[in-house]
Amino acid sequence: MCCMAAGMACHIGILTVSDRVSRGEYADRGGPAIDDYLTDVLSSPWKAVARVVPDELPRVCDALCDMVDNAGCCLVITTGGTGPAPRDITPEATESVCQKMMPGFGELMRQVSLQKVPTAILSRQTAGIRGTCLIVNLPGQPRAIVECLDAVFPAIPYCLDLIGGPYLTTREPRLVAYRPKKPKK
Amino acid sequence: MCCMAAGMACHIGILTVSDRVSRGEYADRGGPAIDDYLTDVLSSPWKAVARVVPDELPRVCDALCDMVDNAGCCLVITTGGTGPAPRDITPEATESVCQKMMPGFGELMRQVSLQKVPTAILSRQTAGIRGTCLIVNLPGQPRAIVECLDAVFPAIPYCLDLIGGPYLTTREPRLVAYRPKKPKK
Amino acid sequence: MCCMAAGMACHIGILTVSDRVSRGEYADRGGPAIDDYLTDVLSSPWKAVARVVPDELPRVCDALCDMVDNAGCCLVITTGGTGPAPRDITPEATESVCQKMMPGFGELMRQVSLQKVPTAILSRQTAGIRGTCLIVNLPGQPRAIVECLDAVFPAIPYCLDLIGGPYLTTREPRLVAYRPKKPKK
Repeated sequence: MCCMAAGMACHIGILTVSDRVSRGEYADRGGPAIDDYLTDVLSSPWKAVARVVPDELPRVCDALCDMVDNAGCCLVITTGGTGPAPRDITPEATESVCQKMMPGFGELMRQVSLQKVPTAILSRQTAGIRGTCLIVNLPGQPRAIVECLDAVFPAIPYCLDLIGGPYLTTREPRLVAYRPKKPKK
Repeated sequence: MCCMAAGMACHIGILTVSDRVSRGEYADRGGPAIDDYLTDVLSSPWKAVARVVPDELPRVCDALCDMVDNAGCCLVITTGGTGPAPRDITPEATESVCQKMMPGFGELMRQVSLQKVPTAILSRQTAGIRGTCLIVNLPGQPRAIVECLDAVFPAIPYCLDLIGGPYLTTREPRLVAYRPKKPKK
Repeated sequence: MCCMAAGMACHIGILTVSDRVSRGEYADRGGPAIDDYLTDVLSSPWKAVARVVPDELPRVCDALCDMVDNAGCCLVITTGGTGPAPRDITPEATESVCQKMMPGFGELMRQVSLQKVPTAILSRQTAGIRGTCLIVNLPGQPRAIVECLDAVFPAIPYCLDLIGGPYLTTREPRLVAYRPKKPKK
C-alpha cells in the first residue's frame, strides 16, 4: 500500500556515479544491484528513475536535483564516488544539494562494512534530505551495497513518513521496516 | 563539592524544543526527565534553568545564547527537534551558536540507541562548546533521554574541567564521572 | 618496496601540537611515539619530517601546508590539540587545509578509545586529504597513539594508493595492510 492514490507508484532514484560507466567502458553493476535490492525488499509499488553520470561535481548535483525536483523521487540512492580519490565527490555533491544532513547513516554503514574490511573507514558516504526526499550514498561494490542497505533500510520508511514522503512497506521477514508505535512528539 | 564559592550552585540549562509543548498542547516530558536525571546523578550543587521554545531556528539560537551568556549555564541539555522532519532544527541551532563541535557525543548516543531501535540513525543530535559551556542535544523521548545520558554523562564533568567550567561530582555508583589521573598535557 | 625510485624513501610528517612542548616546558612524548610506531610497522623505506608547533591555528595550518606542499609528505600524523579546551584547534586546522574530509577515521578511533575510557568522546580528532597527502589527527597520549594507529593504519596504505601516493608496505604479522584484490571501479 502506498499513501498516494491507489496504484500510483512512488519514484525512487538510482544514481550511478562513475566516469568509466558513463563512458561505457564498464558495465553498471551498482545501479542494477540497488534495483534488485529494492525489488527484493519493497512491497509497496515503486518505479525506478535510473541515471548514470561521471564523477563531476556539477553533473552529480544536477542529477540529484533533477531526480528530486522534477522526477519527484521520494528517495534517491547513489552508488560510487564515495572514496578518497581526487574524483570521488559524491558526498560533497550530496551535501551541497541537501538542506539537512543525516550523519547516522554514514556512521552505521561504515560500522557494518568495518566488520568485513578495515578499509571501510575510507568510505565517506553520507545521507541528507532535500525537500521531501532522502538521498543516501552507497559504495560502488554490489556486495557492499547489500550490506549497507540491510543496515539502514529498516529506518528509511519511517524517515520518509517524517519528511512528508510516501508510505513504503516492505516484504517481511526479508526486511522489517521499523516504525515507533506512537507518532513522534 | 563545587569549584565555585562554597554553597554556590552551578547553573544547568534544560531546553525543551517543541512546537506543541510551547503552545501548551502537550505536557513537557523531556525537560522534567532531564531534571530528574540530573537530580539522580549529581552530588555537587546545581540549579536548573529551564525553558521551552518552539522549533524555530532563531528562537532556539536565542535561548541557547541567553542560557549560556546571561544565565551563566556551564552545561545546557536540549530535548527534541533532532529528527529529519522539516521543523527539526535543534542540531543546526546548536552548531550555529558553538565555537567547537564535539562529534563523539552524537556518534555514541546513536550507537547506544541503535541497540534499541533501528531508527536511531534518524537522530541528528550533536554537542558543542560555546565559551565555557557544553551544549548537548538529546532526543525527545524520556526513555531515550536516560539511555543517552547514561552513555555520555561519565565524560561530561571532565569536559567541563577542560573548558573552564565548574567541578561537578556525581553520586557513585549510580554514575561514575571519569577523570584521567594526570592532567592532560 | 616503494613505488618511487628504488632507495628513495617517502616522507612522513609527524607534527606535535602543544604549547608546552613548543616552549620547552615538556618533553615531546607524542612525536617520538609516532616515530617508534612507524619504525615498528613499516617495511618500505620512509623518512620522518618532524615538527613541533604551539596550539595556534595559523601555526598548525602553516606547518601542515609546509609538510605537504614543500616537504612532499605523503602522510602527516599529528599528535595533540584534539580535545575540547579553548586552545585545542588541531581538527579545525586540519579541516581548513584539506580538500576532502575522511570522517571514518575519527569515528573508528573514538570507538576504539571508548573501550578504554568514557572520555574518548571528548576527542575531536579527524582526518582529511590535501592533494596527494593524507593527514590524520591523533590524541596526545602515547598509549592512545598506539591504540588509534593499530585501528586505522591497516587502511592507510590503500588510501595512499587511491590518492596517488607511494606504495607503502608493512611488517606482517605485526600489521597487515589491507588492499582489496581488484582495483576499485
